[in-house]
Amino acid sequence: MSILVVGSVAYDTVETPFGRAERVLGGSASFFSVAASFFTPVNLVGVVGHDFGERQLAAFHGRPIDLEGLERMEGQTFHWQGRYSLDLNSRDTVCTDLNVFEFFQPKIPARYRDSEVVFLGNIDPVLQRQVLEQVERPRLVACDTMNFWIHGKPDELRKTLGKVQILLVNDQEARELSGEWNLVKAAAAIRAMGPRTLVVKKGEHGVLMFGDAGSFAAPALPLEVVFDPTGAGDTFAGGFLGYLASTGQEGDAALRRAVIMGSTLATFCVEAFSLDRLLRLTRPEIDERYRAFERLTRFESL
Amino acid sequence: MSILVVGSVAYDTVETPFGRAERVLGGSASFFSVAASFFTPVNLVGVVGHDFGERQLAAFHGRPIDLEGLERMEGQTFHWQGRYSLDLNSRDTVCTDLNVFEFFQPKIPARYRDSEVVFLGNIDPVLQRQVLEQVERPRLVACDTMNFWIHGKPDELRKTLGKVQILLVNDQEARELSGEWNLVKAAAAIRAMGPRTLVVKKGEHGVLMFGDAGSFAAPALPLEVVFDPTGAGDTFAGGFLGYLASTGQEGDAALRRAVIMGSTLATFCVEAFSLDRLLRLTRPEIDERYRAFERLTRFESL
Repeated sequence: MSILVVGSVAYDTVETPFGRAERVLGGSASFFSVAASFFTPVNLVGVVGHDFGERQLAAFHGRPIDLEGLERMEGQTFHWQGRYSLDLNSRDTVCTDLNVFEFFQPKIPARYRDSEVVFLGNIDPVLQRQVLEQVERPRLVACDTMNFWIHGKPDELRKTLGKVQILLVNDQEARELSGEWNLVKAAAAIRAMGPRTLVVKKGEHGVLMFGDAGSFAAPALPLEVVFDPTGAGDTFAGGFLGYLASTGQEGDAALRRAVIMGSTLATFCVEAFSLDRLLRLTRPEIDERYRAFERLTRFESL
Repeated sequence: MSILVVGSVAYDTVETPFGRAERVLGGSASFFSVAASFFTPVNLVGVVGHDFGERQLAAFHGRPIDLEGLERMEGQTFHWQGRYSLDLNSRDTVCTDLNVFEFFQPKIPARYRDSEVVFLGNIDPVLQRQVLEQVERPRLVACDTMNFWIHGKPDELRKTLGKVQILLVNDQEARELSGEWNLVKAAAAIRAMGPRTLVVKKGEHGVLMFGDAGSFAAPALPLEVVFDPTGAGDTFAGGFLGYLASTGQEGDAALRRAVIMGSTLATFCVEAFSLDRLLRLTRPEIDERYRAFERLTRFESL
């Protein structure tokens, strides 16, 4: 079952304690699409400028990623520049040049309109809703957002959340969206806004999922080297939703496996700059690391 | 198999956003002993002042906790006063009156000297070693420590760690003890100091255990209400080591179950001030919450 994803395709300039990467491929839709493409075909909707050429597109080639929805606009591609702290646990945005992304009006190609699974990347909630309106019968809609929209367009975001089955946010976003510091209370408040399932990403502390069948906690794999965390959240979302779509299931057991699969993909993402590690990743490597999560978490009943 | 525990027995004055408790029973050995006593007999070594009477001792009565090693000294009992932040994630120490604890010289009663399992609570590493020297053939020694000793007596602490099989510390302590920010690297460095098993307590983010058989990650149970975190770490240690001693096993599978049992006991500890919740806890409640950890963490293989 293919996924329609809408989000950013960007150039990232990233500084970590280990080095610097200049204008490398980034953007939520890029990380999401490559991660999801290991499991299911992806239809990508986004926008790039005239400075985004064949070399950059090569990252998506040879994978089940359809680029008809990737619009080419006059102007420069979205560029984000960030600098990480020594412990990689925080980052400063040095600059955000929206460029063509500022004028992004998602247009869904006719071929994509029967998509049953949709991922609304972190864009204006008004645009997120415009995407949904162009899709005929979305069966499963997952969504990301950020503090900029939580505080800047709270009413629009609420309207979008009313049409979403799964929300993926980090712990800070969950707190700000709900106004509750306690994550159990935050989850109850957010689930009352629409999404039956809330996935809270806690970075090095793993993932908490709240749903009708109760809660699920997945730890992060303890990693000796984190090279660049950029894109880890979007990669998680791609692995999560790509795997879920591939199963054709939506129950608690499938959702739990999907959380582990998302976590698995994210551990690879952080091993290198940009999509470098994801682009040379193989399915046997993925399955082996999924099993590492099993070994990490298993314990016997009393 | 009984456990010998040495540590503090204290009065705590605690302020949380939910209320204040004045001079209630606290101290590492108190929380540890009550938690461990659900699984195995405990021999308690500590010191109290003449202001610590029968009413306070009642907490230990009716349980397999031997108090011959609880010395009564002229003077006041150790008193700690702390104030928690609104989110309960940090606390300030308002005052620490060591009182008789300042002069504590652990004396191990003859009946305790054949103890096979020993827990060295967070006291001067010199005293921790003096305890071990009074025990004939300790088979399994677990140990706690804190930043005060990590920075104040690093050489003495190293000597003690050379005689310890299991070290339990929080993530910040693991980082400071090892000088490594990354917990995987920190664990390798600490395990090279002696303890084959390192248990890192991360509060609301759960527990990481590093050992010969690999790593184990246990999440914290997402709790809607945390009333008072005081003693949660010592309660974890008591549940962990008490359960482990009761199995007579030391392998990876038993250690993993022990981590979950420690986490289980800790979730009860934080529901009320002091030992109030632990003192009315039942074994069926413990087993039911252990199963809640199973439900929280289970996922299928691919």
